[in-house]
Amino acid sequence: MSTPAFATHPFPSGIITLTTDFGTRDPFVGVMKGSILSRWPEAKIIDLTHEILVHWPAEAGFWLARSFEYFPRGSVHVAVVDPGVGTKRDIAIVETEGHLFLAPDNGLLAPITSRVGRFKAYRLELHRLAHLGLSVPSATFHGRDIFGPIAAELAAGRLRPHQIGSELRELVPAWVDEPEVETGRVAGAVITVDHFGNLITNIDAALLARFSRPTVRTGSHEFPLKRTYGDGRPGEYVALVNAFRVIEIARSEGSATLGLGLGRGARVEVIEGETGLS
Amino acid sequence: MSTPAFATHPFPSGIITLTTDFGTRDPFVGVMKGSILSRWPEAKIIDLTHEILVHWPAEAGFWLARSFEYFPRGSVHVAVVDPGVGTKRDIAIVETEGHLFLAPDNGLLAPITSRVGRFKAYRLELHRLAHLGLSVPSATFHGRDIFGPIAAELAAGRLRPHQIGSELRELVPAWVDEPEVETGRVAGAVITVDHFGNLITNIDAALLARFSRPTVRTGSHEFPLKRTYGDGRPGEYVALVNAFRVIEIARSEGSATLGLGLGRGARVEVIEGETGLS
Amino acid sequence: MSTPAFATHPFPSGIITLTTDFGTRDPFVGVMKGSILSRWPEAKIIDLTHEILVHWPAEAGFWLARSFEYFPRGSVHVAVVDPGVGTKRDIAIVETEGHLFLAPDNGLLAPITSRVGRFKAYRLELHRLAHLGLSVPSATFHGRDIFGPIAAELAAGRLRPHQIGSELRELVPAWVDEPEVETGRVAGAVITVDHFGNLITNIDAALLARFSRPTVRTGSHEFPLKRTYGDGRPGEYVALVNAFRVIEIARSEGSATLGLGLGRGARVEVIEGETGLS
Repeated sequence: MSTPAFATHPFPSGIITLTTDFGTRDPFVGVMKGSILSRWPEAKIIDLTHEILVHWPAEAGFWLARSFEYFPRGSVHVAVVDPGVGTKRDIAIVETEGHLFLAPDNGLLAPITSRVGRFKAYRLELHRLAHLGLSVPSATFHGRDIFGPIAAELAAGRLRPHQIGSELRELVPAWVDEPEVETGRVAGAVITVDHFGNLITNIDAALLARFSRPTVRTGSHEFPLKRTYGDGRPGEYVALVNAFRVIEIARSEGSATLGLGLGRGARVEVIEGETGLS
Repeated sequence: MSTPAFATHPFPSGIITLTTDFGTRDPFVGVMKGSILSRWPEAKIIDLTHEILVHWPAEAGFWLARSFEYFPRGSVHVAVVDPGVGTKRDIAIVETEGHLFLAPDNGLLAPITSRVGRFKAYRLELHRLAHLGLSVPSATFHGRDIFGPIAAELAAGRLRPHQIGSELRELVPAWVDEPEVETGRVAGAVITVDHFGNLITNIDAALLARFSRPTVRTGSHEFPLKRTYGDGRPGEYVALVNAFRVIEIARSEGSATLGLGLGRGARVEVIEGETGLS
Repeated sequence: MSTPAFATHPFPSGIITLTTDFGTRDPFVGVMKGSILSRWPEAKIIDLTHEILVHWPAEAGFWLARSFEYFPRGSVHVAVVDPGVGTKRDIAIVETEGHLFLAPDNGLLAPITSRVGRFKAYRLELHRLAHLGLSVPSATFHGRDIFGPIAAELAAGRLRPHQIGSELRELVPAWVDEPEVETGRVAGAVITVDHFGNLITNIDAALLARFSRPTVRTGSHEFPLKRTYGDGRPGEYVALVNAFRVIEIARSEGSATLGLGLGRGARVEVIEGETGLS
């Protein structure tokens, strides 16, 4: 928990990614970008997604933990899924593997810290922001009033986390438990359903190593493990290790979530061999 | 109506914001960006929203009037909600507080000019655009053929409004009336419903100053005024001054629009004290 | 089929457009952008649309063929609608009119090559990418693992198509036939329905030249040809040549797709004069 990760990449990439539950119907995301560009016009802002399930930090953390490595080191990742905005929740900064993460300390960042080897975490101390000339934050839109401006300063390389935060030993824990691992069985859950109707679980591919002939099971359904969507016949369900290295249940040329009637939170197991269930 | 607002900020920010009712299903927004970048590759284009209710300029003007200040001075804000495209409606340019606004003259810009102290307004004169080498505009997509290219020239600082427009004394008035203000009562309307289901009104926070104990009322419902969403119990309705300084009715951990069955256009009043209604 | 189109514009525009069926709910598009920026941080990435009907390359090709000309020459257009990801389908590069197109060779690019005079086409040869240091591609997300990185290299001007592909004589043909042209009748189809509910066909405006008084017909409905939406009375259906130079059926201040109950694939004819049908 003490590698000066960012320090070894002293040149920020200039990239700020945004992950929120703001949707795109209103100008909230655009205004947050305005607050970033007003401070640092050179920022390159990339939308990761703004369609996180409202007030469900678990999904934001899940995606961020599996997406950040595809951005250059020196990037700043801001995630605002914040049911407690305006109440006494803290704001956390995590520094790991050359990336910075900024989010409410509400469990959102736990999926990241649980996957990386070493990290440093900080609690933002608002009284140490005085020199930045932030206006008084509103009670309801910290994305614009706090997260955006701080992200701009971090991404510009004008501010380092230790200058505005105190070190944190522990973050608020994750909203969804890690998969249970027993002899002959791994049990996890569907964390999100993607645009194609695929059921995406929190079961990492690494957990398959313990099986010689892994079978994926949910409810009364069993699925063979395939390599890609096209390996199923049209309409057939397949389980596969997806491009983010977790188990996913898909339906070839269809929607698994509609076909199976399953969604977020559904229990998914990996077992050895087949039991004869369909 | 005569401050040379932009002139005192001679260096354009390079930022162009876009507000439309185009949606994001088709390539209309992308093609409009192409038409901007073809003229001025350095433009920084920010989407404010493309989900304005189709053909409802009031919503675009409402959001733009309350969003532009979060962008750097010297920005150009383009709004295209244009039921009259291809007919004889005019195109207006408004210059105020160091920002430029470009939109059909159909009432869209009235919420901006009614809130700022001074502004200059111009009617675009198409015959004065000849030197720009625009192609003949289509009858149905002025966003690509007129608004985009003009915005690029303005944002690049290569063109000033007076060079392509004649001064306008009056813009087409707003689609929605300003709130009625009486002794002991302010009556406004829901202008938009946001992604979270919050009912957002056109009642500015400043109008609350006349009340010692303001109560927000709509239909047979009365709501106490709270500071933030988290100040209500789950399921409870709260009224609050939102981050854009207008009255909003929200439901803690829920959707006010679904819960109350109210939406755009619903009448909302602020009165003194409580009447005993729930 | 041999103009060195790109060569005459040796300076890439730096612009990469993206057209996919990924949607915007998940971070797929954002991660693809990360993979581009990790290779070439200067890329200007523009979303054309990510709402192509899932696994329907015809729509992507239709829009791309009618949109690319609004971007500067030297742009790279990436389209990923890829039901065959991870199976043996090829990846094609097309060079024409100073633009580069990169897509699965599944019919997506046929609407482009059928409309331009000359083009060069290449089949990407993965073994010739070794020097680029791509990681082993996943079986399910070639947008991130192949299309993004290759687009970055092409747009940066560090790679030319012939260096990574072999020339192709023929691309996989289009999914939708070109309109049938007979004496006194042209018959096409609705290719897409836009955000406003307009029915957009594949009948090019040029095909109207053969008629003196063209009437547009679908099912039992006949529509006069108008110039713009505002030329109809509210609720009235109109046919028009839209801004992309194809026949479109719209409903003034309404939705043609809802009103007529027609959508993608519906047959649309142009005939001479009126028959007396409504």
